[in-house]
Order: sequence, then structure tokens, then C-alpha cells
Amino acid sequence: MAGEAEQGRGNGAAALLGTLAEAGVDHVFANPGTSEMHLVQALEGETRMRPVLTLFEGVASGAADGFGRMARRPAATLLHLGAGLGHATANLHNARRAGTPLLNLVGDHARHHRPFDAPLDSDIEGIARPFSAWVRTARSAHGLAQDGADAVAAASTAHPGSLGSIATLAIPVDCAWGGAPGPRAPRPVPARPKVPEAAVAAARRALKAGALLLLDGEALTAEGQRWAAVIAAAVGGSVSATTFPARVEQGPGLPTLARLPYFPEDVQRVLAGVPLILRVGADAPVSFFAYEGVPSDLVPPETEVLTLAERHEDVLDALARLGEALGVKPGAAQAQGQRRPDVPSGALGARQVGATLAAMLPDEAIITVDSGGGGAAALPCAAAAPHSWLNLTGGSIGMGGPLATGAALACPGRPVFALLGDGGALYSLQALWTQARESLPVITLIYNNRRYNILDHEYRRLGINEVGPRAESLFDLSRPDVDFLALAKGFGVPAVRVSEGPALAEAIGRALAAGGPQLLEVML
Amino acid sequence: MAGEAEQGRGNGAAALLGTLAEAGVDHVFANPGTSEMHLVQALEGETRMRPVLTLFEGVASGAADGFGRMARRPAATLLHLGAGLGHATANLHNARRAGTPLLNLVGDHARHHRPFDAPLDSDIEGIARPFSAWVRTARSAHGLAQDGADAVAAASTAHPGSLGSIATLAIPVDCAWGGAPGPRAPRPVPARPKVPEAAVAAARRALKAGALLLLDGEALTAEGQRWAAVIAAAVGGSVSATTFPARVEQGPGLPTLARLPYFPEDVQRVLAGVPLILRVGADAPVSFFAYEGVPSDLVPPETEVLTLAERHEDVLDALARLGEALGVKPGAAQAQGQRRPDVPSGALGARQVGATLAAMLPDEAIITVDSGGGGAAALPCAAAAPHSWLNLTGGSIGMGGPLATGAALACPGRPVFALLGDGGALYSLQALWTQARESLPVITLIYNNRRYNILDHEYRRLGINEVGPRAESLFDLSRPDVDFLALAKGFGVPAVRVSEGPALAEAIGRALAAGGPQLLEVML
Repeated sequence: MAGEAEQGRGNGAAALLGTLAEAGVDHVFANPGTSEMHLVQALEGETRMRPVLTLFEGVASGAADGFGRMARRPAATLLHLGAGLGHATANLHNARRAGTPLLNLVGDHARHHRPFDAPLDSDIEGIARPFSAWVRTARSAHGLAQDGADAVAAASTAHPGSLGSIATLAIPVDCAWGGAPGPRAPRPVPARPKVPEAAVAAARRALKAGALLLLDGEALTAEGQRWAAVIAAAVGGSVSATTFPARVEQGPGLPTLARLPYFPEDVQRVLAGVPLILRVGADAPVSFFAYEGVPSDLVPPETEVLTLAERHEDVLDALARLGEALGVKPGAAQAQGQRRPDVPSGALGARQVGATLAAMLPDEAIITVDSGGGGAAALPCAAAAPHSWLNLTGGSIGMGGPLATGAALACPGRPVFALLGDGGALYSLQALWTQARESLPVITLIYNNRRYNILDHEYRRLGINEVGPRAESLFDLSRPDVDFLALAKGFGVPAVRVSEGPALAEAIGRALAAGGPQLLEVML
Repeated sequence: MAGEAEQGRGNGAAALLGTLAEAGVDHVFANPGTSEMHLVQALEGETRMRPVLTLFEGVASGAADGFGRMARRPAATLLHLGAGLGHATANLHNARRAGTPLLNLVGDHARHHRPFDAPLDSDIEGIARPFSAWVRTARSAHGLAQDGADAVAAASTAHPGSLGSIATLAIPVDCAWGGAPGPRAPRPVPARPKVPEAAVAAARRALKAGALLLLDGEALTAEGQRWAAVIAAAVGGSVSATTFPARVEQGPGLPTLARLPYFPEDVQRVLAGVPLILRVGADAPVSFFAYEGVPSDLVPPETEVLTLAERHEDVLDALARLGEALGVKPGAAQAQGQRRPDVPSGALGARQVGATLAAMLPDEAIITVDSGGGGAAALPCAAAAPHSWLNLTGGSIGMGGPLATGAALACPGRPVFALLGDGGALYSLQALWTQARESLPVITLIYNNRRYNILDHEYRRLGINEVGPRAESLFDLSRPDVDFLALAKGFGVPAVRVSEGPALAEAIGRALAAGGPQLLEVML
């Protein structure tokens, strides 16, 4: 057992939070319990860190993901043992796929208490490992601050492959309450490794007419897109983002950017005849799901695949060196002009919602999407106004609302749109409450078609054209209808229901003027 | 890659479901995705199995827990890869602690698709292991039915220690779609091991005046309690349940049953001077959390601890043999008479809610609780009417609503009460929608004090009497107030708000008469 407790500053908890704050961690998305009370106590004194309460841990992890994608530095979660961490894992899966810097602080029983297998005892490291690039359990109050410094450094590092950038630190409560000498200095974050000259030279040699630069990660910043556009133009090639990149900057002034489609046959169609795919922070395209008779690898047999840079490498440097080798400059990139669609009249489908949003989109908005339906808004929005677009990276729906919450906190003053399917929204609708508490300018659009529509599509892909009553019962979200206006009211967020374009446009305009959170239930 | 797909019967999915149905698995709590579509298709033909849709996987796992506790056989969940399983884990933690028989069916990518690390790819076995006694990934369509038979057998077996009885079977979609010869016969479930004669003899020798029989698991059935009561009476001892047993039968006609309190100092007070604790399916008492200066082991130094039976052993047989050795019969157990409190007038606290519920409790109700507040209803209900009481076993709040949903499906015709704190209810309020869809007679009482009240208590146990604004922001659930009437309406469940005993009693009476789900928001 650790030494005497020391109130407030002076214990491990205070030393940990001081270390995190010094390293720039200034938001903690929290749903704490008894084993985290010393950390809560330390938050009282650590005013550089803003605690944000969530009602469900999946909101905490999704909000930390949204924060990290926009701020490009880690926010923390504060979670209650393995059970709280478990609730957070689905959105941690998405954050891992996004490569988001993110730090989980998970309270644990005191080390001397573990052998007694008390009811909340659980294998925190085992639960964290599938989602984390770095996992550690603190071993002493004296060492806890250094653990924190190590954790922030790990969360700030882009790890290779799909490891992501999530660090999980389990904190036995005796390490939090025990006396500690004080905060530790931040650890220097290693720079992204630069790609070897041979990779740049090989890309330069191989690029040819028809080549496709496939972008993800840092390549989808404004700078990355401009470099990619001038490189492609120089060789007569083209540029595309992957299907679900974590974050894309778009709008007038930036080049036009294609995206790979979702269904494998559509990807194959787009790639047919492409002589070369140059991977720029992007993985080679694979099918999202496996289907009988459809290959997993969607690269056509005749297409060469070459790697300029992996996502964890210095993608921007690699693009700049390739561009310089080709004698082009990013300033010469052809920018798309501003184009806004008209607000469509009549009934709304996903396309009409996208057009309406594009017609109303303010400058510098952030858009989060949770599903395919929301994705239909990407094309008309692309040239409507400058914005950041955050995708569902890992396929675990229920991410869009939490993501919007964290993005809004990362970027005060920027309006945020969360485009959510009805099914997806219901995994984590508690995000609305945190938006209300923090007065965040998040406008949630629910695409309400009263079913898990994607499953209908997928089921029919099996060749079944008649959906029987038992399958139907698993796709259908009526019986009873979910009333999103009532749910929003329950969480303290004003809401309106619309079913036509002009009404939606008016509701968006009013919500933007109001400034706080708002839910628009869009009946499809 | 597996052979040709075979529609409906004839593929691995159909063979698996046929095997499960043959083994008695007749409910599946589902939130499927694309990788589970062949299982959905097979459900269309397997009419012995009832699919129940949930909007969040924590509802599915909690409902399967409630079903298993009441039916004493496994229900299945149907979950979407590691992300869906992740959402389910917090309530799987509670189910593991409860020892509930439970079978997770988790769809996975096709085996040939795994190496491509598609977005939803995740370490399903790694995620399942901390919560499961048995984990397997199917390896072929031909073997899938046998995997299912093995999984049901594992889920039907009480495993030693706190391993629980959860079996998780990951099903690569190619094993579901591939051709298979058909269902396999159920595997015989091994009987619980009988305790050695020496354990019975040692207990008989050691029992003395003042001894405490500590009961959990099967010992808390009506039969177990009667045996324990006559054994204790014969030696001048007493009987107690543990703090949070999974299921307790109570009511007039059964013996009075004490329960160990929650806070460690209270447990120590109860146990002071007890010469012997006889463990009957129960672990020795330990502190729920660790506190400075409070031991984890709550057995007084002078108290002897002896084991009659571990929870996974044949506890009832052990009690019967001990009783026979002492020459007593369960029929001689002293039964408590019926006592109903009056409905209290005036404002409601947790005690008054408990008294009101006891005053109105119908026969054969099932009561689920999610927190300490709901526990205050146990005492007045104990002698009011025969009922089954299901506790929060693992400390992961958000279990009570899902648990009630599954319990209602396991026991058609029995009214169910879910006693939920406001904070706990908000983790998994989607359970209401499933209750509405299935027309379940679940009456949810929300104890709304607009805060995580337990954290206030725990924080003050640190010796802090002033809760500062930043800690307060993490305990407080107002700003904005959560409107449970609106949330219930959103999920299709009628609701009323009450703040006095007579109004609560009237609302309970009306809800019982109506028969379907109802939410009563009780303002404390």
C-alpha cells in the first residue's frame, strides 16, 4: 500500500494532471466513478484542463476522437475501470482507424485490492489492447507523472500500419492517492519519419498519364491536396481520396478531389484501366466487407501499386520532394470555384438533403458523418464553402454525434453539422446532452427513414429479393417510431421536424443564427 | 474461400441456428450488420428462435443476462464484429459476475478477407476474452454447427472462480455462407460437481452458535434458503446473502434473509464477533472499492472462514447433505409472514419509493436494480409479495433496463420493475424501445435526483466536504435537466412524473393494469 494520502497537489493524481496539462492536454471527456475520485479532485486544481461530462463513455471516446482530428493533438478520456473502457471501445475502434491522437485515463482498483477480485475488477489492459497502440498500468504514485508524460508522447506519435495513436494508461487508485514529487516535463514527440529518397525517385520514374494519386491522412490537408493536384497535372494523372478518410479539407480555393466509392464493384469500375496507383498516406483499396465472388483486393490485376509514403510517415515532405523533383509548385494548383446548388423543392432524399446543406453551408463549418446517407452530402458541399469533413473511419456507426461534440470544443466559433442516420444516432444520442451543457453550435441532421437502410441493401446483395417478416423485424425501426423531437427535448436540445427542402433550409438558417445545439429530424 | 453459397437451409448459418434451437436457445437479442446477414437469413427459417432487435448492443447483452438469470439457460446475442461486441462488454462484465449462462454470436469478416485489414477488422477474440469463459472463432462452414453445440454447452456450464458462463463464438461470414451438412445434436451439459464429503463433515463439525451462513448463487433459490434457514436455526447461527447476488427469491412463505451492506465499514460492523463464516456458493466478503486505511478483506481477524461449496459446485446438494447430517428438513424453515408498509405521504426519498413499491407489489414480480438507491427497496419488498430480485452484480451501471427487458421475455406474464438511478438509466435507455416493440410489462422507476449521487458520497469519503465547481460539474446532471418523460416518449413508452407517495402508488397501479411498458419519473 502506498504512503499517506496527500490532499490535492502533492499526490500522484495532481502530478499526473500537471504533467498532462504541461504537455498540452487541455480537454478531458469524463464519465468517472469512485476509483477516479482523486483525479476529479486534482482536476479541481488543474485549471488548464477542461473537464467535459458525458453520459455514456462512447460519447467520451468519440468526442476525444473529434477533438483530436481537429486539434491534431490528444484530448483525454477519463473512464471507470474496464466496464467504462468497454463502453468506449466501439468509438475507440473508429479513432484507431482514423489515426487520431487520443489518451485514455482509466481508473483501476488499488494494486493491493486486485487479488481480491472485487466486483468491478477487470482486465483493463486486455480490454484496451485491441484498440491501443500503447498500454500501461501505473506501478507507483512516484512514477505516475512519468507514465503520463510517456502516454502523451505515445498518443502524439503516428504508429505504423493500423496501430493508430491511442494510448491507454490504467491508474490504480493507490497511485493516484499516494504522495508524489510533482509533474514531469513533456517528452519530445518524435518527428514523422521522412521517406527515403528512393521512394521519391521511384514515384517520379513511375508516374505516367492515367496514374492515380491515392491520398489519406496528412495528404488530405490543404497543402497536401495542392501538392497532389500539381503533381497529377504534371503527369496527366488524377487524384482521389480513399473511401473514408478521417479528415478532408474541402471548398472553393482547393482543388477538386474525387473519392473512392463504397461498394467494391464501384471501386473496381473507377480503377479499371488505371496503370498506376501511387499510395500517398493511403492503403491500397480493399473491399469494406467480403462478398462471395468479389475479391478483397480491389486493385485491378494490370494496375501497378507504388508507395510514396505510409500514413505514419512525413507525407507532406514526401509530396513536396516529389513535386520539386517534377518542377511544380503547389501555388499552381487549379482551384475549384464556388458552386452552390439551389435548395431543392419537394420531398427529401439523401441527395436533396445534401444539396440543401450545400446551399446553406457557412464558411469554415465542420461536418461529421456517420453513414452512407450522410456521405451523399459530400459532393454538393465540396465546392459550396470551405469546410472540414470528418468521416466514419472504422465502420462502427454511432460516431457522428460524439465526434461533432469534440470537434466543436476543439474549434470554438466554427459551426458543426452532424449528419446521422436514425439507426446510427441511437447508439450514442447522449451526445446531445453534452452539446447542450457546453452550448456547442452543433446542428444534428437525423436522416430518418425508420430503418437500418444499409442492411436492406446488403441483404438484397445476397440475392434475396423478398425480405421475410423475421429479417424485416431486424431492419425496421418503426413499431414504434422513434420520435427524435422528443429525444432531443429529453436531452435539452431544441428540435424541429422537416420533410421538404425549403423547410430544411430555413431550419438550418435559424439554427445557425441561434448558435447553440439544434436537432433537425429530416423525414425521408 | 468456402464453396458456393447455399440459400437458407444448407449453409453453415442454418446448421448453426438449427443446432442452437435444438439445444434450447430460443431467444436472440440482436443488433446485426452486414457480416451477419446470412445468420439473419437463417433466422427467417428457424422459427424456434425469436429475434429481438435492440438499438444498442449493451441492451442486447444486458437483456441476455436478464433472460439467462430467470430462465437459467442461455439466450444468444447477435453482434456486429468487434465494435458491436465492444458496446456489449460493460453488461457482459455484469453477466460474467452474475454467472449467467449467455452465448455471444459475433459476425466476423470472411477468413480470406482478414489479412486485408478492412476498416471493421478487429481482434474479436481479444475483445471477448476478458468477459468470456469460452472463446472460439469458427474455422469452416462444416464445423460451424459443432462449434455452436460446443458453445451452448460452455455457456450452460458454471465455470470455477469468477470465470462466469459466457461463451463467445466468432463466425467468419464464409463459414456462415458455405455449405454445411446440417445441425448437430446438443452436447450433454456436465452436472455441477458435488462437494466432497469432507467439506460437509467439516462444516458440520465447525458450525456453532453465532455462525453465519453466507449465501450466493444457487443457495439463494427458495430451496437453498430453506435449507440454510433450518441449518442455521439448528446451530444457533444466522443466514445472509452477499451484497449483490445475481438473483434472490423473496417473499412471504420464505425465510427472512439478511444481506451484507455495501460500504466496507458497515460490513465490518455486521461481521464483528461472528466466530465462523460458512461460504455457501459465496465468496468471502471484500470491499467493493479500495479506500485508504480500510482493508480489502472484510473478514474480522478472529473469524474463521470455511467453504461448504463454491458457486460452480452443486450448492443445493451440499446444503441438503449438511442438513441431513444435522437431522433437519427444509420444510421446517420458519417462513416470514406477509407485511406491507403503508404508502408514505409527502415527498419521496429512496426509502419512501421502496415502501410505496412494497405497498403495491403484485405477486411474482421481477425486480431489477441498477444502483444503491434501488437497493433501498429490497427490505420493504422482502415480505410484501413473492418476487425475484436481480442485482447489479458487477458494478457497471446501466444494466437494470436491459436486464428487465430480458427477464420479461423469459417469464411471460410476470410484471417487471426496473429501479434505475437517473445517471445509470442514461447509459442504456434504448432498452425502452425494445420494451415498447415487444409490448413487455416493464415498469421503469427513474430515481431522479439529477446527479451521480454515489459520487458525492464517495468524494466526501476522501475527506473533502466542499465540492468545488469543477468536481461538481462531473457529479451534476442538471444544466440541462434530463427530461425522462420526453425520452420515454421518444422511445414509444408512456410515462408520468411523480413526486409524492400516493401519486406514485396510483401510477404503479395504473401501469400494472395497462400491462405494457411504462416509465415513472420519480423526483427525489
